[in-house]
Amino acid sequence: MNIILFDKSEIQNNRVVLKDRRSKHIIKVLGSSQGDIVRTGIINGPTGTSKIISISKDSVELCTDHSGPLPEVPPTDLILALPRPIMLKRIFSQAATLGVGRIFLINANRVEKSFFSASLLQENNFYQHLLHGLEQAVDTRVPEVTIHSRFKPFVEDTLPQLNAAWNVRLVAHPGPFPLLPDSTTKLQQKKTVIAIGPEGGWVDYEIDKFQEQGFVPFSMGRRILRVDTAVPALLSQIDLLRYITS
Amino acid sequence: MNIILFDKSEIQNNRVVLKDRRSKHIIKVLGSSQGDIVRTGIINGPTGTSKIISISKDSVELCTDHSGPLPEVPPTDLILALPRPIMLKRIFSQAATLGVGRIFLINANRVEKSFFSASLLQENNFYQHLLHGLEQAVDTRVPEVTIHSRFKPFVEDTLPQLNAAWNVRLVAHPGPFPLLPDSTTKLQQKKTVIAIGPEGGWVDYEIDKFQEQGFVPFSMGRRILRVDTAVPALLSQIDLLRYITS
Repeated sequence: MNIILFDKSEIQNNRVVLKDRRSKHIIKVLGSSQGDIVRTGIINGPTGTSKIISISKDSVELCTDHSGPLPEVPPTDLILALPRPIMLKRIFSQAATLGVGRIFLINANRVEKSFFSASLLQENNFYQHLLHGLEQAVDTRVPEVTIHSRFKPFVEDTLPQLNAAWNVRLVAHPGPFPLLPDSTTKLQQKKTVIAIGPEGGWVDYEIDKFQEQGFVPFSMGRRILRVDTAVPALLSQIDLLRYITS
Repeated sequence: MNIILFDKSEIQNNRVVLKDRRSKHIIKVLGSSQGDIVRTGIINGPTGTSKIISISKDSVELCTDHSGPLPEVPPTDLILALPRPIMLKRIFSQAATLGVGRIFLINANRVEKSFFSASLLQENNFYQHLLHGLEQAVDTRVPEVTIHSRFKPFVEDTLPQLNAAWNVRLVAHPGPFPLLPDSTTKLQQKKTVIAIGPEGGWVDYEIDKFQEQGFVPFSMGRRILRVDTAVPALLSQIDLLRYITS
């Protein structure tokens, strides 16, 4: 936890009282005392610091000052064929750490249908994993997550409405496609979306549909990656390409 | 499991009998029958195929033909301040998937000493996690792992003996250092070693010691990554830089 995040509704007259894993972190990990300053932020809001007003065995009261910068929304979005829930937890957290704007969880031919009824996807249960990722990265912007249980309506109806927002659209796929750097020219800070398939890959129909929507297929090279390796690998490669070309 | 790996000692006159997770994979996941061909390889040896001679409820007999190519040793080595065991399992598997030649697990000021007595590090218990990573990536080369429980002898005595093997030596460290691409010129297929610190980072003394051995510090940017995110992120960025500059 490199930043402690508050929901806006928790703060009343610049005061907040914590009695959960955040106070535990301040007490046990940071070992803070009354008067100490800790790095804090408002979820989807600005960053800043908070001063410890009082501290007991299990609660901490803080006075907040969130006059710091508002983090920018990361310029990369992720379309992900729904992976198995245990893998998705880690992917949520790592994607939030590396920085994504939106995550679209979609169906595909090789997605197990039962994954859509996972408890992780009910009632925003995944939210905590996104927060853990932001706390690690010192960010406040929670990726927007939407779930699309049918492939065809997603690519035919939803994508056309979103396409204008993206300058670069990429789909990862094993096969005779160029590698990532050949697929992108002058990436800089351009709005980019990257689609990553299920274990076993997209089927041809799905690749065709993405290509119809202006997505450029690229190969990740000779080695076959699991989805939970592909996500951090690709997000950090995109970051590097942005940096190199800007 | 995108390739099934055999130890050389398991093969007798081009025949091997499996009665473990590998036969289970052939029977349950691949759903193979007698006469089918599966992709196989010899650990640290060549790749090839094997033909199913007979198959029962829990065992599979194969006839092997490993006349395929011998995978090259990956040109990147990893020095890693020993992370907590549960994280290390995943790092072993992901590093083997992405491809590393050697892994040096070392001590550092911010490493918890108890990690060195983890059962994962006893009797090669980590070996299976490296194999899982290779089975995913379709590789046969097991990364060489060595454990160095004292920092000073490692940097002062061991590193000088190894240094000649590396053309590029990098150490990841938050701080006023250039980002990765500025630290490397024409990486191509040059032998490279990258040192990644513990949660909380290296201490100044450790960075000084690495610099004395010709390691160039670089920053990973504004976001703070957990070690299990930093490893796949950096290995795949190194891969991309190799590709761009070759």
